[in-house]
Amino acid sequence: MTYQAPVDDILFALKSAVGVESLIESGIYEGLDEETLAAVLAEAGKFGAEVLDPLNGVGDKLGSTVKDGVVTTPPGWKAAYDQFVAGGWAALPAPAEFGGQGLPNIVAMATNEVWNSSNLSFGLGPLLTHGAIDALLVDGSEELKCIYLPKMSSGEWMGTMNLTEPHAGTDLGHIRTKAVPQADGTYKLSGTKIFITYGEHDLSSNIIHMVLARLPDAPAGTRGISLFLVPKFLVNKDGTLGARNDVLCASLEHKLGIHASPTCVMKYGEKDGAIGYLVGQEGRGLNTMFIMMNLARLAVGVQGVGLAERATQRAVAYARERKQGRTASSKPGEMGPIIEHADIRRTILQMRALTQAARAICLVTAREHDIAHRAASEAERKAAANKVALLTPIAKAYSTDIGVEVASLGLQVHGGMGFIEETGAAQYYRDARILPIYEGTNSVQAIDLVTRKLPLEGGKVMMAYLAEFEETVKEVEASNQPAFGQMGKRLGETVKALKETSMWMGKQLQSNPEAAMAGATPYLRLFGLAAGGHYLARGALAAVRSGSTAEVPYIGLARFFAENITTAAPGLATSITSGADAVLGVEVA
Amino acid sequence: MTYQAPVDDILFALKSAVGVESLIESGIYEGLDEETLAAVLAEAGKFGAEVLDPLNGVGDKLGSTVKDGVVTTPPGWKAAYDQFVAGGWAALPAPAEFGGQGLPNIVAMATNEVWNSSNLSFGLGPLLTHGAIDALLVDGSEELKCIYLPKMSSGEWMGTMNLTEPHAGTDLGHIRTKAVPQADGTYKLSGTKIFITYGEHDLSSNIIHMVLARLPDAPAGTRGISLFLVPKFLVNKDGTLGARNDVLCASLEHKLGIHASPTCVMKYGEKDGAIGYLVGQEGRGLNTMFIMMNLARLAVGVQGVGLAERATQRAVAYARERKQGRTASSKPGEMGPIIEHADIRRTILQMRALTQAARAICLVTAREHDIAHRAASEAERKAAANKVALLTPIAKAYSTDIGVEVASLGLQVHGGMGFIEETGAAQYYRDARILPIYEGTNSVQAIDLVTRKLPLEGGKVMMAYLAEFEETVKEVEASNQPAFGQMGKRLGETVKALKETSMWMGKQLQSNPEAAMAGATPYLRLFGLAAGGHYLARGALAAVRSGSTAEVPYIGLARFFAENITTAAPGLATSITSGADAVLGVEVA
Repeated sequence: MTYQAPVDDILFALKSAVGVESLIESGIYEGLDEETLAAVLAEAGKFGAEVLDPLNGVGDKLGSTVKDGVVTTPPGWKAAYDQFVAGGWAALPAPAEFGGQGLPNIVAMATNEVWNSSNLSFGLGPLLTHGAIDALLVDGSEELKCIYLPKMSSGEWMGTMNLTEPHAGTDLGHIRTKAVPQADGTYKLSGTKIFITYGEHDLSSNIIHMVLARLPDAPAGTRGISLFLVPKFLVNKDGTLGARNDVLCASLEHKLGIHASPTCVMKYGEKDGAIGYLVGQEGRGLNTMFIMMNLARLAVGVQGVGLAERATQRAVAYARERKQGRTASSKPGEMGPIIEHADIRRTILQMRALTQAARAICLVTAREHDIAHRAASEAERKAAANKVALLTPIAKAYSTDIGVEVASLGLQVHGGMGFIEETGAAQYYRDARILPIYEGTNSVQAIDLVTRKLPLEGGKVMMAYLAEFEETVKEVEASNQPAFGQMGKRLGETVKALKETSMWMGKQLQSNPEAAMAGATPYLRLFGLAAGGHYLARGALAAVRSGSTAEVPYIGLARFFAENITTAAPGLATSITSGADAVLGVEVA
Repeated sequence: MTYQAPVDDILFALKSAVGVESLIESGIYEGLDEETLAAVLAEAGKFGAEVLDPLNGVGDKLGSTVKDGVVTTPPGWKAAYDQFVAGGWAALPAPAEFGGQGLPNIVAMATNEVWNSSNLSFGLGPLLTHGAIDALLVDGSEELKCIYLPKMSSGEWMGTMNLTEPHAGTDLGHIRTKAVPQADGTYKLSGTKIFITYGEHDLSSNIIHMVLARLPDAPAGTRGISLFLVPKFLVNKDGTLGARNDVLCASLEHKLGIHASPTCVMKYGEKDGAIGYLVGQEGRGLNTMFIMMNLARLAVGVQGVGLAERATQRAVAYARERKQGRTASSKPGEMGPIIEHADIRRTILQMRALTQAARAICLVTAREHDIAHRAASEAERKAAANKVALLTPIAKAYSTDIGVEVASLGLQVHGGMGFIEETGAAQYYRDARILPIYEGTNSVQAIDLVTRKLPLEGGKVMMAYLAEFEETVKEVEASNQPAFGQMGKRLGETVKALKETSMWMGKQLQSNPEAAMAGATPYLRLFGLAAGGHYLARGALAAVRSGSTAEVPYIGLARFFAENITTAAPGLATSITSGADAVLGVEVA
C-alpha cells in the first residue's frame, strides 16, 4: 500500500505538544506560519510517497554493492537523490548563511520523519550529512566553512561521521587512527574506521568525512582525540574537485536491514596518508562531536517515529483488507475484516499511541533546539539547551525502542503473511533493529540520562519538567471529561512514579551509583511513558478545547495510552527502586 | 561460539518445577531414572552441538531451494537427518507399539529444546512429523497405523500438516480443498495449501501429508471438514514405495527467517486427483487436528525456549569477550568486559530469567501430557488433560513472545556487531519471529485461554492452579531467606493480580465478552509472569533445601524475575480491568 504522510498527526502534535502557534507569535519562527508548515509537509509527503517509498523495497532487495572500492546504490537511487537536492529538500534545514533554507528544527524533524518513514536507508544519508554540517558549523574555521558548507548545504556534496574503530565503539577514548601534522598546516591521516554509513557511494560528486583521530603526541583517552575534515576529492581553490584523497571503502557490511545504506569499512592513508583539515582545537574532537550529537540523536529518534508510522500504516491497511472469522460487520457464514477483532484493535491502537507519543517527544525536543538557538535572551537559550540535554536520550531511546516494538507488532498483525518478505512488513522489523544501536546504544542513552542529565543544574531541569507533567495531570483531572476515562488517574500515577524514581536516582548517584545504573533502562522507559502520556493528554485537552470532530481520535489515543500503556509505570518504579540488588548481587559473568 | 546444551538448567527445572523424582516414584515414568535423563540430555546436547548447530548458519545463508517441484535442503542437511534417524532421535518420542522408543513427553520436549536451540529450521521437520504421527494415533484406522506409523516413527518417512489456504488461516472453517470419495474407499483430493512446512524436501524417502479437505456434500463451516492422509509416494502392500501421488510443491516462500525449512505452496490434484485416505470420521477433521494440536503448540513453545537459550548463550559469550569502558575488573586506562556493566548484567539476567521461566512452564505442560496419558486413574488423567488445556496457550504464546524478546535483547548486547549478519545474533532475531505466528497466532492463544480455558469445569481448573501459586507465595514468605529479597511480596502481588483479573474475565464472559477479548493478550502475559514466577520460586526453594552451591544461581534468577519482571503484573491487571473501553470505544477502522 502507498505511504501517506501523516500530515494531520504531525500538525496536531506541533499544535498541542509543541505549541507552535505561540512560538510563531513569539517571533522565534519568523517567516513561518501554519499554512506554510502544512504546505511544506504536504509537499514532503508527496515526495516521500511518490519518489522514496517506491524505492524502499528495491533498496532492500538489491542493496548497495561494492566493487574495487566503488559503491553503487540500487537502481533509481541516484536519480531520487538528484530530485531530493533539486527540490531543495537537502537544503531545507541547512544554514541560510551558506545557501541553505535555514528552516527551524521542528520543520526539519517533521520532514525527516517523512523521509525515514518512506525510506529509512535513504533518509540516513542526509541525516549524516547534517551531522557533518553541524560539526563544521560548531567548530570549523571560516575557511573550511566557506569551502565546504555551501555545497554540503545544497546536498551537492554529502557528509559522513567517522568515529567507530573495531575495538572502540561506545568507548571512543581508545581510538587509534593517527593524524600527523604537515608543514602546510594540514594533517595526514591513517587508520581504519568501521560502520561508516554512506562512507562511499555514487549519490554525490564529493563526500566530506568528519574523522576522529589522534595526534602523534596526544595524551591517552578522550582528551587526545581531534576532529578532522577529510574530503574524498580534494577541493581546488576555485571550488572545483581536485585529486582523489587517500581514503577508500575496503568493504561493505552484510547487514540485517537498511541494505541500501552502504555501511563501509573505511581505510585512511593506505598509500601516503589521507589529507585532512583540523576542525576546532586539537584534543577537542570529542567535544565537537558531542555538541552536534544531540541533533543527530534526535534525528535517529525521528527515524524510530517514521519507521513506526510506516509499519502502522501497512498493518492497518492489511487489517482492513484481510478477512478472518466473524466480526461485527460480517454476514452470517462470511468473514469480517480482522481490524474488527478486539485484539487487533488493541494492537493497532498500541502502535498508533506509541508512535504519536514518540512523535510529540521528538518534536518538542526539536522546539527546544530551536529556542536554544533562536531565543532573544541568554536565559531562555540556556534553559532550552538544558531541556535539549535532558530530552535527547528520551527522544533517541524511547522512540527507537518503540520503533522496534511497533514494527514487530505490525508484522504480527499480518499473521503468516508478515513472515513473507514480499509482504513488506518484515523489512521494517529488520530495518528498525539498528535504531536502538547506532548514535549511542540505548543503554548508553539510559546511562547518560541518569548520570549526566538528571543532575543538570542540581536537578532543577528535571524538577521543572516534572512540574509541567503535574500541571497536565491537574488540568486533565479538572476537565471532568467522561471521554477521558481514567486518563487523569493513570497519568497521575505515572508522574508520581517518575518523580519518586528521579529522587531515588539522585540519592543513589551520591551513595551507590551502580544501583542507579542498574535501573537506568527501566527509568528511561518510565520517563518516556510519562512524557508521552503528558503530550498525548495535552493533545486530548486541545481536542476538547477545539471541539473539532476531526480531533476526537486524539482523545481516544491519549486515553488508550494512559489506560493501557502508562499502566506499566508503577511496576517500572518498583523494579528501579527495589530491583537493583537482584541485578548486582548475583554471578552473571 | 559453540552451543552447549543447558543440561543443568533443564534437569533443575525437571526437579524443581516438574517434580520428576516423585513422578518416577509414582511409577508413571517406568524405566526412567534421573541418571538416564541426564545421559539422554548430554547425548542430545552433543548431537546438537556437533551436528546441528554447525549447520544453522549455512542453512540460513543458502536456504532450501526448489526447481521443477524438487526441493533441495542445504549442504549437509540430508546427512545430518540420516544421523538423527540412525541415532534414534527421531524415534525417541514415537509410540513404542510402532517401533518408537516411547519416551515420555518431558524427555521429548527437553530434547526438542536442544534440536531447536541448535537449529530451529532443522527442529521443525521432526516437530511436524510428530504432529502427523499424533493425528494418526488419535484417529487413524488400524490399517493406516500399521502401514505408516512404523516408518514415520523411525523417521524414515517424515510428515506434514496441511491446514492453511490463501483465504483461510486462523479461520479454517472456510477451507475449500475438495475430497471426492472413490469406489475403492479412497478419496481424490484437489486444492491448494499454503505455508506447508517441509511440504517437499530431500531428507526422507517419503512424505506423509495430513490434509484438511471438504467432501462434495459437506456442510459449510468447520463441521464439513475431514482429515486425509496423502502420501507423496503411494505405498505398496509389501510396504515398498509405489507410484508418485498427484501432489507437488509449486513454490517455496521467501521468508524473513528459518530459511532452511522449506515453506511450500502445495498443489493437490493438478492431474487426476491426489489419492488420500480418510483419518477418523468424515466431518471430524478439525477435532482430530485440535487433539494433536495441543502437543504441537507445546512443541512450538519449546522452540521459543530453545531459541531464547541459544540467543542468550551467544550474547553472554560476546559480553564476556567484548571490552568497552571501565569496569570493576579493568586496569587503569584499559577496558573491561561489557558483562561487568550494570545495564548489560540486567539484560543478561532478563534473558536468562525469561528463558528459564518459559522452560519450566513448557516442561510442566509436558508432564501434564504424560499424566493425562499414563496415570492409573481416570480422575488423574482427566485432571491432567484439563491442565494441559489450560497451560497450552501459555506455553505456546508466553514462550514464543519471550523468544522474540530475548533474541532482540541478545542482538542489542552485541551493539553494532549484532546488526551484522555474520555475527549470528541477527539470525535468531529473524528466525524467532515466526514463533508467535504459526500453530495459532498468539492472539488466537490469548482468546483461546480466556474464552475456552478459563471456563473449563466452571473455572475450577483455573482456581486449582491459582491455589498452587498461592501455596508457593506462602512458602516463599515463610522461608525467611534474606537471599530471596522481595520475592514473596512481588510474587504475592502477581498472583493477586492474576486472581483478580481471572474473576473479572469470568464475569465479562457472561456480560460483555468483547471486553474480555480486549484484555486477552495482557491477561495471557500476566498469566505467564505468575506461572513463571511461581516455578522459578519453587526452584529457589529447592535450591535452599538442597544447600548445593551449584544451585545458588537459581535463587538469584528467581529473585530477579520477581523483583524486575513480575513487577509488571499489577499494571497489566489495571490495563485489563479498566482499559477495555479505551480499546473498544474508539474508531480504528
